[in-house]
Amino acid sequence: MENIKKYVQDNKERFINELIELLKIPSVSADSAYAHDVIMTAEAVKASLEKAGCDFVELCETPGYPIVYGEKIIDKSLPTVLVYGHYDVQPADPINLWTSPPFEPVIKTTDIHPEGAIFARGACDDKGQMYMHVKAFEYMIASNTLPCNVKFMIEGEEEVGSKSLGWFVERNQEKLANDVILISDTGMISNTQPSITTGLRGLSYVEVEVTGPNRDLHSGLYGGAVANPINILTKMIASLHDENNHITIPGFYDNVEELSLEERAEMAKAPFSLEDYKKALDIDDIYGEAGYVTNERNSIRPTLDVNGIWGGYTGEGAKTVIASKAFAKISMRLVPNQDWEEITALFKKHFESIAPKSVKVVVKPHHGGQGYVTPIDSVGYRAANKAYTETFGVPAIPVRSGGSIPIVALFEKELKSKTILMGFGLDSDAIHSPNEHFGVFNYLKGIETIPLFYKYFTEMSK
Amino acid sequence: MENIKKYVQDNKERFINELIELLKIPSVSADSAYAHDVIMTAEAVKASLEKAGCDFVELCETPGYPIVYGEKIIDKSLPTVLVYGHYDVQPADPINLWTSPPFEPVIKTTDIHPEGAIFARGACDDKGQMYMHVKAFEYMIASNTLPCNVKFMIEGEEEVGSKSLGWFVERNQEKLANDVILISDTGMISNTQPSITTGLRGLSYVEVEVTGPNRDLHSGLYGGAVANPINILTKMIASLHDENNHITIPGFYDNVEELSLEERAEMAKAPFSLEDYKKALDIDDIYGEAGYVTNERNSIRPTLDVNGIWGGYTGEGAKTVIASKAFAKISMRLVPNQDWEEITALFKKHFESIAPKSVKVVVKPHHGGQGYVTPIDSVGYRAANKAYTETFGVPAIPVRSGGSIPIVALFEKELKSKTILMGFGLDSDAIHSPNEHFGVFNYLKGIETIPLFYKYFTEMSK
Repeated sequence: MENIKKYVQDNKERFINELIELLKIPSVSADSAYAHDVIMTAEAVKASLEKAGCDFVELCETPGYPIVYGEKIIDKSLPTVLVYGHYDVQPADPINLWTSPPFEPVIKTTDIHPEGAIFARGACDDKGQMYMHVKAFEYMIASNTLPCNVKFMIEGEEEVGSKSLGWFVERNQEKLANDVILISDTGMISNTQPSITTGLRGLSYVEVEVTGPNRDLHSGLYGGAVANPINILTKMIASLHDENNHITIPGFYDNVEELSLEERAEMAKAPFSLEDYKKALDIDDIYGEAGYVTNERNSIRPTLDVNGIWGGYTGEGAKTVIASKAFAKISMRLVPNQDWEEITALFKKHFESIAPKSVKVVVKPHHGGQGYVTPIDSVGYRAANKAYTETFGVPAIPVRSGGSIPIVALFEKELKSKTILMGFGLDSDAIHSPNEHFGVFNYLKGIETIPLFYKYFTEMSK
Repeated sequence: MENIKKYVQDNKERFINELIELLKIPSVSADSAYAHDVIMTAEAVKASLEKAGCDFVELCETPGYPIVYGEKIIDKSLPTVLVYGHYDVQPADPINLWTSPPFEPVIKTTDIHPEGAIFARGACDDKGQMYMHVKAFEYMIASNTLPCNVKFMIEGEEEVGSKSLGWFVERNQEKLANDVILISDTGMISNTQPSITTGLRGLSYVEVEVTGPNRDLHSGLYGGAVANPINILTKMIASLHDENNHITIPGFYDNVEELSLEERAEMAKAPFSLEDYKKALDIDDIYGEAGYVTNERNSIRPTLDVNGIWGGYTGEGAKTVIASKAFAKISMRLVPNQDWEEITALFKKHFESIAPKSVKVVVKPHHGGQGYVTPIDSVGYRAANKAYTETFGVPAIPVRSGGSIPIVALFEKELKSKTILMGFGLDSDAIHSPNEHFGVFNYLKGIETIPLFYKYFTEMSK
């Protein structure tokens, strides 16, 4: 398939500039201040699909942000690939840590990206990876090599729990009928060693509020005599892990999938340098659950992390106050077989139970999703592996990811089809962090690899 | 002294309006954004002292905000009273909890203040209480009844540690020479039961910073494998108290003054209703150090409170991030004999020692001060008690306050004189909280009582 290589080279500048335009729109779904920009991004994605050659494209209304749906049906007897992606992005803060404005994309070279990387919020997660599919589709139409039917479903609430997507999928099973779901919203090991994500962690995200006295108090007049909600919150959160960093919520581990020693040995084969890992994060030591190594802790084991905490006086200088309230956002990464709604209920029950009588506690479930595992003997996996092997020169390694794409489990339940996670990002892309970026090499390599998946998937499906 | 009663009645409206004008200036010393307003407030206080009848008033430059100095020397052979107060105020946030704007004073009646109370930041702490002295002085000049010399020293950095005041006092011992220091910056038991504060707690205020990875991380890809600085901070803070709510910092209690059972029995005589206390704060239970009752926990025992905590994503919605840094402002209230600088050093040493190798910790000492106890057999105490007895009809009860006025210990060291804490505020005045207020009754009663202190102190000093 030499033509795609040439097509990518000939259109490289345009592909990059089109993505940059998309990245300029701050589609932050978590903050309603950006609502208009989120809608504008949906419109832009819709236009790009029409331009690329879809027969039919629409913005599907939902209780939240619209879902961009597009399709090209060439022959009902041929297989259908459903491409999923999202056009919303994470908030950009802490803004002051960005070396260039998050919504003013620039190309800079890095040690890992000598050919340059596009720096912007959403560059990798997921605008860049989603747009690879639009450009790969454009090529297949332009070169008249599209071997099967294709449907696109690009949502705008992935970073806030994909609530509307679930609502949409449940109501449009026929419209979304497919033989395989293709997603690029994960990473690979390195630019010389591709990998396919075969497992994802589930997620339960909650917000907690601890209320002590009914108003802020003078810490001198009341200090020592009333419960300080911040001190209490730290005590409660600290108690959620024991000395081995096991999570102490009763029943939390009941359904956790325990991998066999063979499976863990297989995982251990993936290249990993603890020294490089610590160096990249500038930490003197790692930290985690006793009895597991780093690549297990961040993939096959559940976690509990505080994502945000606040309370009392956080301004300049000093204020001797006992706050009335303290807050925290807490998320738990779950593994296959842990039901996120059950875990959320267990957390709520436990957290409320450990609160002393001197405070009031409210636990607000935010959102969540189930974990997922995909078999490596499926047609989809083999087709993806063959595509990577052809463009990278080496076969892909199957890896478990610690991340969560809650809707993958939902797709299997509602649409009865497997998802293939063809990710082209790298862990070093700083997604969800300041200075998120996506390698130009990775972006173009993705556009080059995707048509091969369509080709082999269609052939193997015969 | 019927004249003062009449003078207060005749000038009531003007006294209130003058204070309201002073309260309109947002002199927040902790936030440099208000620097200009702090200076404006100093100018206003200077003008009020000139108008009241001082011979000499000046703004004394310091490394920080100016100190307003004023004096009226009528006869060098007579005693000299040094009045101390502060014109700066606490920050007003959380602003949304104020029922009226903090710097737009209004008079509202409350259950405790049927005659009305002035609602504004600084109404009680300390603009209102400080201004009582200006008006009492005005009366003594106007009625030609000032029985002794008087000096005023009003500072603008009390809410941020009085650093410049220490600097100033050390350099002006002769100028500030006095026989007694008079301060109204504390409270009394109730409007029918006056009390005089005979003890103050010391203070050590620090800020801590915990750094994990060198950047914010995706909680899915890294969660469970690296130290989350927020989780670590909660663990470290939680460990600072044991199951009996004793502070765990080694050496923390070494010099704590232990009161005799007799002294504690004497304290227990002060009227106190646990039910009313809980009701006023809307709490189901109190919380504190085992082995001590509420009025001991908040006065004769040292404490450790988190005054503010922040880290990670605190905005709307959800962000699955592991923050690079987490912060907390922590203050310890100290009792007599605990040296604040020694305690600060103990805290720093201990807090750094309990940090796991996987994070970096920085402890920044903010400010502090020593505790203080004043003898109840001194001339100053007896004069104050006689004044209260005359205006309230019942003698004052000596009480230990949990609050800190760090400079009181400094005054004794540098100026060799005792301080009398004639407070007219109430615990319910919500100082340092939203909706701070000061009863009109309390304000006027203070103006009425202060001249009597001058009278009796001068007589008893002969």
